[in-house]
Amino acid sequence: MQYQAPANDIRFLLFDVLGVDRLHELEKYAEATPDLISAVIDEAGKLAAEVIQPTNQTGDREGCSYDPETHAVTTPKGFKEAYKQFVEGGWTALDAPPEFGGQGLPHTLKFVVDEMMCSTNLSLGMYPGLTHGAISALFAHGSDELKNIYLEKLISGEWTGTMCLTEPQCGTDLGMIRTRATPNDDGSYAIEGTKIWITGGEHDLVDNIVHLVLAKLPDAPDTTKGISLFVVPKFLPDSSERNPVFCGGLEHKMGIKGSATCVMNFEGAKGWLVGEANDGMRAMFTMMNEARLMVGMQGLGLAEMAFQESLDFARERLQGRSLGGPKNADGPADPIIVHPDVRRMLMRQKVLNEGMRALALYTGRHLDLSVAHPDEAVREASDDLVQLLTPVVKGFLTDEGFNNANTGLQVLGGSGFTTDWPLEQLVRDGRIARIYEGTNGIQAMDLVGRKLSLKGGKLVGGLFNELTGYLKDNPEAPHREELEGAIKSLEEATLWLASNAPKDPEQAGAAATPYLRLMALTVIGYLWSRMAGVAEKKLADADANTALLESKQVSARFYFEKLLPEVHWLLDDIKSGKDSLMAFDNNHWAA
Amino acid sequence: MQYQAPANDIRFLLFDVLGVDRLHELEKYAEATPDLISAVIDEAGKLAAEVIQPTNQTGDREGCSYDPETHAVTTPKGFKEAYKQFVEGGWTALDAPPEFGGQGLPHTLKFVVDEMMCSTNLSLGMYPGLTHGAISALFAHGSDELKNIYLEKLISGEWTGTMCLTEPQCGTDLGMIRTRATPNDDGSYAIEGTKIWITGGEHDLVDNIVHLVLAKLPDAPDTTKGISLFVVPKFLPDSSERNPVFCGGLEHKMGIKGSATCVMNFEGAKGWLVGEANDGMRAMFTMMNEARLMVGMQGLGLAEMAFQESLDFARERLQGRSLGGPKNADGPADPIIVHPDVRRMLMRQKVLNEGMRALALYTGRHLDLSVAHPDEAVREASDDLVQLLTPVVKGFLTDEGFNNANTGLQVLGGSGFTTDWPLEQLVRDGRIARIYEGTNGIQAMDLVGRKLSLKGGKLVGGLFNELTGYLKDNPEAPHREELEGAIKSLEEATLWLASNAPKDPEQAGAAATPYLRLMALTVIGYLWSRMAGVAEKKLADADANTALLESKQVSARFYFEKLLPEVHWLLDDIKSGKDSLMAFDNNHWAA
Repeated sequence: MQYQAPANDIRFLLFDVLGVDRLHELEKYAEATPDLISAVIDEAGKLAAEVIQPTNQTGDREGCSYDPETHAVTTPKGFKEAYKQFVEGGWTALDAPPEFGGQGLPHTLKFVVDEMMCSTNLSLGMYPGLTHGAISALFAHGSDELKNIYLEKLISGEWTGTMCLTEPQCGTDLGMIRTRATPNDDGSYAIEGTKIWITGGEHDLVDNIVHLVLAKLPDAPDTTKGISLFVVPKFLPDSSERNPVFCGGLEHKMGIKGSATCVMNFEGAKGWLVGEANDGMRAMFTMMNEARLMVGMQGLGLAEMAFQESLDFARERLQGRSLGGPKNADGPADPIIVHPDVRRMLMRQKVLNEGMRALALYTGRHLDLSVAHPDEAVREASDDLVQLLTPVVKGFLTDEGFNNANTGLQVLGGSGFTTDWPLEQLVRDGRIARIYEGTNGIQAMDLVGRKLSLKGGKLVGGLFNELTGYLKDNPEAPHREELEGAIKSLEEATLWLASNAPKDPEQAGAAATPYLRLMALTVIGYLWSRMAGVAEKKLADADANTALLESKQVSARFYFEKLLPEVHWLLDDIKSGKDSLMAFDNNHWAA
Repeated sequence: MQYQAPANDIRFLLFDVLGVDRLHELEKYAEATPDLISAVIDEAGKLAAEVIQPTNQTGDREGCSYDPETHAVTTPKGFKEAYKQFVEGGWTALDAPPEFGGQGLPHTLKFVVDEMMCSTNLSLGMYPGLTHGAISALFAHGSDELKNIYLEKLISGEWTGTMCLTEPQCGTDLGMIRTRATPNDDGSYAIEGTKIWITGGEHDLVDNIVHLVLAKLPDAPDTTKGISLFVVPKFLPDSSERNPVFCGGLEHKMGIKGSATCVMNFEGAKGWLVGEANDGMRAMFTMMNEARLMVGMQGLGLAEMAFQESLDFARERLQGRSLGGPKNADGPADPIIVHPDVRRMLMRQKVLNEGMRALALYTGRHLDLSVAHPDEAVREASDDLVQLLTPVVKGFLTDEGFNNANTGLQVLGGSGFTTDWPLEQLVRDGRIARIYEGTNGIQAMDLVGRKLSLKGGKLVGGLFNELTGYLKDNPEAPHREELEGAIKSLEEATLWLASNAPKDPEQAGAAATPYLRLMALTVIGYLWSRMAGVAEKKLADADANTALLESKQVSARFYFEKLLPEVHWLLDDIKSGKDSLMAFDNNHWAA
């Protein structure tokens, strides 16, 4: 079936719930009028359905191929043409800085487009996706010279970018990298080493590829404090000379087969330092934080496509009779959507997807405020929220995106397991999102081990202010009691961490995963209460989309009755502490 | 890595916890002495590791192939030889009736062997697996003539069997089947129709394939009460003539690629009625119930292999330092098993796997008592429990088997997503187990819609007697309070269903999935309390496996602290009822 962008839900969130339609009141986003936002939503949806989606299944079947003679990588048939249309539509430039040819639109809109791209071809979306991170890192940390050389072509999509971090012996623990950067006489560096799992490290979509590479200078300390970031182009921009950085092979993977995952060998390739020496981790995190939010959208995008497919199937497939009496008496059976357990699967998908979208766009709006609001206090408060919620968006949206893709597959039964239907590909593609750009365990550790204690707890304090402020301002908030209970659980868990983690960091490690989930469910609960409240008010409007608003009320009820109560279990888990995790000695595991 | 059968855990369960070592006191199982059981465990483990496992990855890569000219199906390289060794070892005959060449050993041992086969090659295990169901159906419902013709060769493994149920227009709703059986003059029937998703419908492992086929006699009612079961051999046993039943193609699937999933065309093939006319559903359920228990073992088997792989990886992979101070100070980093969040993933796998194994073997023992105990009351009580727990074993072990395989993959991070490691195959293979032989939603409906009300609630009453009897007899039962709480939740949910479902069957449908899960977690909780109790007692023995017994105590603690509290959330879900599931009209879903 053809993808249908969830445009109504997105407009409801941006315009009615989150106030993204007022971002144009800020000078930086003056062009982001409601009309323009609406046009972006519609055009992106059309592109995704008509240009991107047709390349998805064929891309999975064909995969990328590698020629060991030339080190060249060929992307699947149709990728080049689809990428070209994506570039020509200006989509790579959407939220990029105008001084280098970008459109400078709000980042929230980039989130919206990311979701659609990932619904229709995650593999293809990875090429511009990683490029976007390279743009941000160069823009934030590069010299004017480097910016002038690289940014315009990356933003226009004429070139693509990569993030070269992982090496065979280190992924999470980047202090262990071995790639070396030796100064050349001309101010550049000779980069030597091997990087693995490099998305888009080599491919045929564009003429030049710009690698951002973590490497160590001579005599740099052997920790993350000794890492520097370099820009290493495939072809040198001044001379068009081939730089000795070559793809050594492709990974064979469970999914995202149209995305070239490369081994990259840097054989004395010329590179230029980005930012300060030994300060590469800071620039890396500029890319990484952005990538984490994007990966969250991947989870959501796949889950949305899975929902659409499974809803369609459940309405068409005739099997069994409704327990409440036939609903399709003239047919041989009722459509399976009449069965409560099938509806449970569909509602789970719909309600979590919409909740996750709300969380992501809520975070996106704060990202925009953090860079565009005139009041520094607002900027800081929004930046605090974005920092706090980045691991939550990445972890929760990819875990539940994957679970929802699986739920969609389950609705189809045996059909879902066959390659005749797209569900199994969505599940395979979605599996990686829980892993890359920091596994979801690392996200949880970032949240409890770092974000909670930043600025003396001010980040999470800001979140609690928002949550309790909402309850205070809205005595009639829908599902108030359940939301209050969840907030209380989150507070209790936070206090438990505050009093246990400082004296024993392993307690933070033990609590990390359930704590991230507890925060995600609670914030999404807050957003569902807001959505239900808006729906209630707007139902009075004469021209309201009644079906959408009613669906929001029912969905909120489902969320508060059937999903949110998990928070109390998570609190129990957290409070039981680390002992049952840490008690095993080596001889206990396989006794 | 080479599979290592969890022999110590199996012996602990069979000998120390469940009393399977006393089954030999029953006349039927006189040969099943502890020594023999132990030999079966060891030999099966050896076969799985040395003969079966080496065919797993290559089988996935190569898959089955189909020749449209000859309708022949070729299994992957090595399957034929491995199957031959499986047959020569007598494994197809393990628990089959001795009067037809079977060994007549307890079914519990079959469960044990099933797990090992599924850990090492699920696809290959499907061929004898389905055959076993055909044996049981023919043994229970076939005439003496049919038994004499087919059973010996099926039991010896010289022939294999299939279950031909599904058709393009019906899977779950078998009342809609269109395959017709027209009487021939010689007492046989001409079978005409198309069946899909037939496991082992055609292959090259054996010379003859015996199909058990659901079809309708002329003028049979158009419901499940009009279905009859027929045996349809590929080659007629008397004349060796080719019967016109042909494979029309293979499904292309996400996983179990070495298992031939066939479209089967019956073109007037000769068949013989099994059991009474129009009574085919009863015989079908003989196969189906057995298959459901086997599929449960598939979920567990894959999860066990995933655990072993991820444990091994977590001990080898060096990354980061322990939060409690370096554990491998001389190395560049600590093994990732030091990190609490990695341990959470490993413990989740280990504790759930061992709990699921306990649930399966507990059910297996009751299956054995139900056929072998001299006291009819014991036989009936055990049969009640088996009937009640069959959907629980199928549903929970395949859901959590899949989740645990995914957890294992997550421990490996990016490596787990590549085909260089077996995890991604385990996940793909395991996805089908939640679907076939009745989706897990159907299992849940079978539990709440049928099993709960059978014999006026006597089945679930029997379970509660056992649970509360245990608490009464063991005032010092480990984790007594938490177990009591779970039993109470299960009781409350059962009462809620008893008072709501009869007047509104959709309430049963809405509660089905969380109810099945609630029952599974509670019964596994009961078994973890028993395991911890046995461990406590046995630790006093001089020759005790201290590491194993200590691990059981820690694992029980993990289960009660971090997994069991989910039951209270499930109860909330159930009690919130069907309203939020059923409120949507057609126009709400994609408003």
